[in-house]
Amino acid sequence: MTVSIGLLGAGRIGKVHAEAIATNRDAKLTAVFDPVVDAAAAIAQNAGARQAPIDDILADPAIDAVIIATPTDLHADQIEAAAQAGKAIFCEKPIDLDTERVRSCLDVVARGNARLMIGFNRRFDPHIAELRGQIDRGAVGDVELAQITSRDPAPPPEAYVRRSGGIFRDMMIHDFDMARFLLDEEIVEVSATGSVLFEQMIGDAGDFDTATATLRSETGRICVITNSRRATYGYDQRIEVHGSKGLAAIDNTRATNVMVADGSGYRTEPLLPFFMERYLDAYKRELAVFVDALTNSAPLSPNGMDGLRALEIADAAEESARTSRKVTIQSR
Amino acid sequence: MTVSIGLLGAGRIGKVHAEAIATNRDAKLTAVFDPVVDAAAAIAQNAGARQAPIDDILADPAIDAVIIATPTDLHADQIEAAAQAGKAIFCEKPIDLDTERVRSCLDVVARGNARLMIGFNRRFDPHIAELRGQIDRGAVGDVELAQITSRDPAPPPEAYVRRSGGIFRDMMIHDFDMARFLLDEEIVEVSATGSVLFEQMIGDAGDFDTATATLRSETGRICVITNSRRATYGYDQRIEVHGSKGLAAIDNTRATNVMVADGSGYRTEPLLPFFMERYLDAYKRELAVFVDALTNSAPLSPNGMDGLRALEIADAAEESARTSRKVTIQSR
Amino acid sequence: MTVSIGLLGAGRIGKVHAEAIATNRDAKLTAVFDPVVDAAAAIAQNAGARQAPIDDILADPAIDAVIIATPTDLHADQIEAAAQAGKAIFCEKPIDLDTERVRSCLDVVARGNARLMIGFNRRFDPHIAELRGQIDRGAVGDVELAQITSRDPAPPPEAYVRRSGGIFRDMMIHDFDMARFLLDEEIVEVSATGSVLFEQMIGDAGDFDTATATLRSETGRICVITNSRRATYGYDQRIEVHGSKGLAAIDNTRATNVMVADGSGYRTEPLLPFFMERYLDAYKRELAVFVDALTNSAPLSPNGMDGLRALEIADAAEESARTSRKVTIQSR
Amino acid sequence: MTVSIGLLGAGRIGKVHAEAIATNRDAKLTAVFDPVVDAAAAIAQNAGARQAPIDDILADPAIDAVIIATPTDLHADQIEAAAQAGKAIFCEKPIDLDTERVRSCLDVVARGNARLMIGFNRRFDPHIAELRGQIDRGAVGDVELAQITSRDPAPPPEAYVRRSGGIFRDMMIHDFDMARFLLDEEIVEVSATGSVLFEQMIGDAGDFDTATATLRSETGRICVITNSRRATYGYDQRIEVHGSKGLAAIDNTRATNVMVADGSGYRTEPLLPFFMERYLDAYKRELAVFVDALTNSAPLSPNGMDGLRALEIADAAEESARTSRKVTIQSR
Repeated sequence: MTVSIGLLGAGRIGKVHAEAIATNRDAKLTAVFDPVVDAAAAIAQNAGARQAPIDDILADPAIDAVIIATPTDLHADQIEAAAQAGKAIFCEKPIDLDTERVRSCLDVVARGNARLMIGFNRRFDPHIAELRGQIDRGAVGDVELAQITSRDPAPPPEAYVRRSGGIFRDMMIHDFDMARFLLDEEIVEVSATGSVLFEQMIGDAGDFDTATATLRSETGRICVITNSRRATYGYDQRIEVHGSKGLAAIDNTRATNVMVADGSGYRTEPLLPFFMERYLDAYKRELAVFVDALTNSAPLSPNGMDGLRALEIADAAEESARTSRKVTIQSR
Repeated sequence: MTVSIGLLGAGRIGKVHAEAIATNRDAKLTAVFDPVVDAAAAIAQNAGARQAPIDDILADPAIDAVIIATPTDLHADQIEAAAQAGKAIFCEKPIDLDTERVRSCLDVVARGNARLMIGFNRRFDPHIAELRGQIDRGAVGDVELAQITSRDPAPPPEAYVRRSGGIFRDMMIHDFDMARFLLDEEIVEVSATGSVLFEQMIGDAGDFDTATATLRSETGRICVITNSRRATYGYDQRIEVHGSKGLAAIDNTRATNVMVADGSGYRTEPLLPFFMERYLDAYKRELAVFVDALTNSAPLSPNGMDGLRALEIADAAEESARTSRKVTIQSR
Repeated sequence: MTVSIGLLGAGRIGKVHAEAIATNRDAKLTAVFDPVVDAAAAIAQNAGARQAPIDDILADPAIDAVIIATPTDLHADQIEAAAQAGKAIFCEKPIDLDTERVRSCLDVVARGNARLMIGFNRRFDPHIAELRGQIDRGAVGDVELAQITSRDPAPPPEAYVRRSGGIFRDMMIHDFDMARFLLDEEIVEVSATGSVLFEQMIGDAGDFDTATATLRSETGRICVITNSRRATYGYDQRIEVHGSKGLAAIDNTRATNVMVADGSGYRTEPLLPFFMERYLDAYKRELAVFVDALTNSAPLSPNGMDGLRALEIADAAEESARTSRKVTIQSR
Repeated sequence: MTVSIGLLGAGRIGKVHAEAIATNRDAKLTAVFDPVVDAAAAIAQNAGARQAPIDDILADPAIDAVIIATPTDLHADQIEAAAQAGKAIFCEKPIDLDTERVRSCLDVVARGNARLMIGFNRRFDPHIAELRGQIDRGAVGDVELAQITSRDPAPPPEAYVRRSGGIFRDMMIHDFDMARFLLDEEIVEVSATGSVLFEQMIGDAGDFDTATATLRSETGRICVITNSRRATYGYDQRIEVHGSKGLAAIDNTRATNVMVADGSGYRTEPLLPFFMERYLDAYKRELAVFVDALTNSAPLSPNGMDGLRALEIADAAEESARTSRKVTIQSR
């Protein structure tokens, strides 16, 4: 069986998904929507798909699933519409920047028995998946402490910053999902710190360019996260997980491993530039997992609740960074 | 323009080329030949190509190029037939195990003004290509000494060994091409050593399981190569190039960079298992270079003369390993 | 000139200092005191020094300096006595577990114009000193964020834990000094978290076996520290410093760099076991700096104020870990 | 018991031995000879030893052993004199550049039942000793192939080159000893190559600046060695040993492991500059092994025969590099 997919949104991340579909033998891109007609047309033509309005896509019984890759403020409405249309749904994170809106959206999904997967792509990165596999196979014993370093190569444009929801909801939310994925427990307390150290535009927008958070789980497991909107040496993505038996960690990746040595020392090249390069395989494997789960009627993961939980942690981090308090999360 | 390709040979390496074509927007697999009908059919069906006898493929004016991925002893005849049919030709190494046959074949190619590229895939590996790029950009200055380590994970089957032409012509020939590629000079003297240290079957076939060669170029540049038919820790592929200004080197690659530490120390996973995994990108880039050159009427490289030169070095190494002499190469 | 030294305390760390003196051409161990006569005798005999009561040592005009390596609760009294006797003083950290006592002690030192150096040995480690040197030479630009990982190989004995002052004052205090050393600014806010995850004895003593702290400096620079009382793979000591131009970091060290590869992967040995091995060179260089400064009448660093500042941060961390608040430090 | 030592030769390597003695509790430097009186005086004064003519040293019954660190052409005569005087002898490599002279010298040593150790310092390097230990403990199984890379930072002065005996006898001889140490078999065949690629002065002296050798042992084990008189990035010393079960290797060492990353990539510092820094610990451990063996009447190793064997391999390499032949070694 081939899963027929409608793509909502033909921007940067929409293109990534279209390419993932193109390399997947069990999936087919059937229709594409984007208000920017040229963007939609380019993807559609490449894939042999049609351009269509959202309503047509949702109404087409031949389309099994939609991928929502539109701006964040449209996600919740589109999820609800797709759920009511009986489509399986893959939606980029976050569902919404407001947890109440997320909850009401998830209620609609639940009432419609709709299937929803959220795009926390890093879970599907081969390195991170193997790290999780090592933990599952007992390499570190009982997990005690995780350390996550995430640094973007350069600040996003001001327009992006202003509607991003802030560094915790926009950037560190990936790390919050990683914390839950790796600690295997819910987070109950968050302490966060933010600074404006190098990009006044970010400060003017009321946001931080550098931030850290310390998360505590139900049984006292700890996750420490550091974020920066700049890393001159590339997209820095490292994780280490300590446990009763030892340590498991992933390091950064490079385009090539060429090393050059001379009188100034030994040099290797900078890291891969950004998430498109670093997580290319992750996006393909994420799509494959989505398609496989649909084909086999298996549960989708990460799901809407995972999206909600990460956002709750982001809200708590934001509050902690703005006050002198650690913030407790009341899970519901 | 899309380059229409006929594939001769649907075995392991034929499949690799078919997949490389599938991911190339400028190429199209049109026809496949293999005496094993099922193998040809599987590839043809996947690609939307037809199965056809070789003669039909060579006679089809809509086919621009052939990829020869048949057993070695068929290469020279098929190259000649394709050259006479006016096709561009990509042929897996070696052209033949006999240098006289190679020369007569290249004469036919030359007389027909045919275009021929030889499958020394490693030149297209991103790591090795960047190593070459660093040398081109002067990172090591004048090249003086190269060291190449190539170790297969495990010995091939006896049948393969017996018709392989020996470790120098079958395995180390890739390293001989690398030596020419990296030293940028012709090799004039070869000293080689072979031993049977772990696989009596290889010794019984009159071959070596472990071998080394030291090559000297016209101006005294040196390349030292070590080969083994076994490496318990994966497919070992390393190169270092020393020059007047310093050193450039490539290291091995792994599926993931996960590291685990405990009381027994720090561990990383074994290397990629074999050439299919290690040089996957190289095969794709090799096909792309072939297709680009055809599209742009650019010269093909490596070409038939590169194939001949590597074989001459292999012959010299074989002779040196069987005697107490270093062997001089008379380039023609 | 040779600096004549009296050593107070012949325990584990006293022995380290005695050995550092033995390898220093400009220093001489003249007298040793320890209530455990055998311990003092062993060191004295090795060094050709005499055993003597503290009063005799302080009264001996031929002795230039004392090294205080006694239990923490004796430090402040002995510093005061040595200051009044006109000796230069090297004292192991901390001066006292109580900041008020530290302040009154430093008053005595100041009134006596005594010279006091505090044993933050890590500043003298060659790796950390070179890291600091890279920062001084501008390699990372303006410092923004430091990350420090310190993990002891195994929990100390219960008796030690109970009088240690807790993980923040006993163990993380070294990292607090590192934070000041690397951020080059005073810390104004601390948020800390502690857990009991693997050693109930530590929990029973009211302490944490795992702890983290996030420090903020005056201008918003951030330092994130993680500590654990256990690391199965050796004594884990890593630092990274991020700035406007890039990153500088130190990695762990091993006794040898032997690597073994086989079917299970690549292995290197565990880290050096503990601080005696890891910071052996640091202790020698620390002593040399102390002796040089005395010889050249140069200022001693780190001094008593550095000891006080680190303790203030530790107090703040302890308070933060026990409450739901970040704690502000009022520097005086 | 303390071993009383007389030092012959107060040059660079003599100073290294004097310092090794100074840090050894079981050894004492009693007397020093050097025709350069100031050099001898400096060492003697530092150690509390006396300056003395060689005859006095050999005649002094209180002196147990001599360390011969004089120019090579004096070694054999001094070994013989010391042997006849009943002293235990540590002599820097080589015993002589002429194998016949070495043999006659070893005859004198044997007739006098004298004890003689040769200064192949690398065997005592902690990294190499652990590599040997891993092999002994079976980590690589049966040894099959060793690869040794040795590169000096810069060419020696012309005067040194002219009386050095050539790169094989002066520099690669250390690697020949390593080959025997690691392969654990005698070498029976040598093929070598030399080039003059960057230092005409060396070529004018009839020597090579770059050289390689391939050694074969009795059972076909292979060792490949590459040497260069220049490495811009420091003193390059690497070894890998392959066997039936896997690979064991040592990498280079650095003064510090500080890493700096920015837009140009990741950088670590150059290697340690030369053998004085790289093998400092090896010299100390070598001296300790010599002293221990004397104290415990244990056999000395490496001994005179090890010195002879390495020289025979060097002679064979020299001959092979000058001809078109591999050279067989007739062990006697």
